[in-house]
Amino acid sequence: MKGGLKRGPAELALGVRAGDRRSLARAITLVESTRSEDEAQALELLRALLPFHTRGLRVGVSGPPGVGKSSLLERLGVHLVESGQRPAVLVVDPSSQRGAGSILGDKTRMVRLAREAAAYVRPSPSGDSNGGISRATGDVLMLCEVAGFSPSLVETVGVGQAETAVTNVVDVLLLLLEPGAGDELQGIKRGLNEWGDVIAVNKSDGARAELARQTCAQFAAGLSSFRNGESAAPVVCVSALLGTGIADLWAALETRYRELEASGALQRKHREQRKADLYRRLAIALMRRFAHDARRQAEVRSIEQRVMSGALLPAEAVELLLQGD
Amino acid sequence: MKGGLKRGPAELALGVRAGDRRSLARAITLVESTRSEDEAQALELLRALLPFHTRGLRVGVSGPPGVGKSSLLERLGVHLVESGQRPAVLVVDPSSQRGAGSILGDKTRMVRLAREAAAYVRPSPSGDSNGGISRATGDVLMLCEVAGFSPSLVETVGVGQAETAVTNVVDVLLLLLEPGAGDELQGIKRGLNEWGDVIAVNKSDGARAELARQTCAQFAAGLSSFRNGESAAPVVCVSALLGTGIADLWAALETRYRELEASGALQRKHREQRKADLYRRLAIALMRRFAHDARRQAEVRSIEQRVMSGALLPAEAVELLLQGD
Repeated sequence: MKGGLKRGPAELALGVRAGDRRSLARAITLVESTRSEDEAQALELLRALLPFHTRGLRVGVSGPPGVGKSSLLERLGVHLVESGQRPAVLVVDPSSQRGAGSILGDKTRMVRLAREAAAYVRPSPSGDSNGGISRATGDVLMLCEVAGFSPSLVETVGVGQAETAVTNVVDVLLLLLEPGAGDELQGIKRGLNEWGDVIAVNKSDGARAELARQTCAQFAAGLSSFRNGESAAPVVCVSALLGTGIADLWAALETRYRELEASGALQRKHREQRKADLYRRLAIALMRRFAHDARRQAEVRSIEQRVMSGALLPAEAVELLLQGD
Repeated sequence: MKGGLKRGPAELALGVRAGDRRSLARAITLVESTRSEDEAQALELLRALLPFHTRGLRVGVSGPPGVGKSSLLERLGVHLVESGQRPAVLVVDPSSQRGAGSILGDKTRMVRLAREAAAYVRPSPSGDSNGGISRATGDVLMLCEVAGFSPSLVETVGVGQAETAVTNVVDVLLLLLEPGAGDELQGIKRGLNEWGDVIAVNKSDGARAELARQTCAQFAAGLSSFRNGESAAPVVCVSALLGTGIADLWAALETRYRELEASGALQRKHREQRKADLYRRLAIALMRRFAHDARRQAEVRSIEQRVMSGALLPAEAVELLLQGD
């Protein structure tokens, strides 16, 4: 951890368990760190907290840029607080990869929610080009849950690997679309059923209210005609601007979660998520070990150069590198 | 390769070099195959073709679902044929991962382009959840280019890892947006500069023409105020429905490509793409070797079960698996 008072993982674990916001913030910074000295500490912290962890409902929120994800997250978060819950909200800090830092300040986002003592709002760096979902997102959610913040809402930015990556850590995926999106989506409705557990059409207000209603009806009819056996993804009209449809949307997300739980699909999903996480981490560790093996550094460097110049195919290079290893 | 006459890689290479469409189709099927006996043949084929390969302009086309990517691809393809070029167009076959096969037939796509002898249209399976971009896409483009089809247009489906994955194989990324998308995109304009080399606002027709014009102007003003040093991404109004703005859009894409070439950025990008491809393949090969090591199969299985049940953290499991290895 950079700056501040250095505290050991054991002490930090106590703070997180007590629901202390500053401890939670420090713990998250620790698990998000990629410095090797922090990695051992992060693992010690998570190991200490594992016995106290109960997973809560986690919702991923996905959709094209401009559809109004952050306004909707604020509305959902406030709705949860008003109904007596303590939501964790992970929002994407849309800082550029190459640009000069964060522009979260450009947009006064989460104005109301960020003031709520019963909510925990955390901006995630989007700098790894994964749209706010990183290797650490699952650990961050675990920390929030141990600290008493649940359910959680996880924003993804609508361009990049985010939508796929978020399904590795959430239970239910909400896909937010524009009024009128139905016209050209006719052909990929079956695909949509895979992309979202619940579909919401935003901007059901003012001049676009009628179009939004039509789009909802269109999706609802189309989706139910596909999904065999499983129930179709519910479709809800909302307005993040006016705050309408928010309670219905949350009810649809919760119902979906209960259905998955009752059928055993949720438990299977959690097992598969943990397995996928294991193999992602194993792949990174194997690559790191291979790259750090001093005996072959010179060989790797030379082969890499031949690949970069176009003289050697990557697949050939892999054969060469693994020969006699 | 499934079915048909079996031909060796050497013979297939001759067919591809001669621009024979059936040879090209077979070669693509071979490099897309994940069967281990095909992998060696695919590598032999690519190795035979490497000396005859000159990379052409490759454009990735990305954007939210429903924005009209496939109609625009058809328009761009026809425009290229009419101006004497021989485009390769890789379109996504939006078959569901879990669903029952392809639904490309649902939509009569690429009606005109598919009939052109001077164009090569190839549907890519989207089944690997990567939105049509697979491990093999770079190889498929190389085959098309050796067969004389270039420039190439590569469609990605707008949800998933596709937009990130496609940048690993293309030169220039076109981001297609809706009229009105500008209002809520104010905050992430800097991000957009990273996502697209050229931005097009589609549906500049009928009732939305004026809104599209405003959106274009808004983006153009916003984008130019960011990007320091580099020139801002150009913004073009198009209508895939009417076919307007298509020549201007192609000119913008080509200009962008020439700029990247002149500054040396294109050559650097190609070197980085080859390097990333090498390490992606190496990671897969290392994981495969680890998983196939018979001595540790039982241990891996037992640790995997403990992770899946939630009793062991994935990071702890990786430590255990690599101990004393």
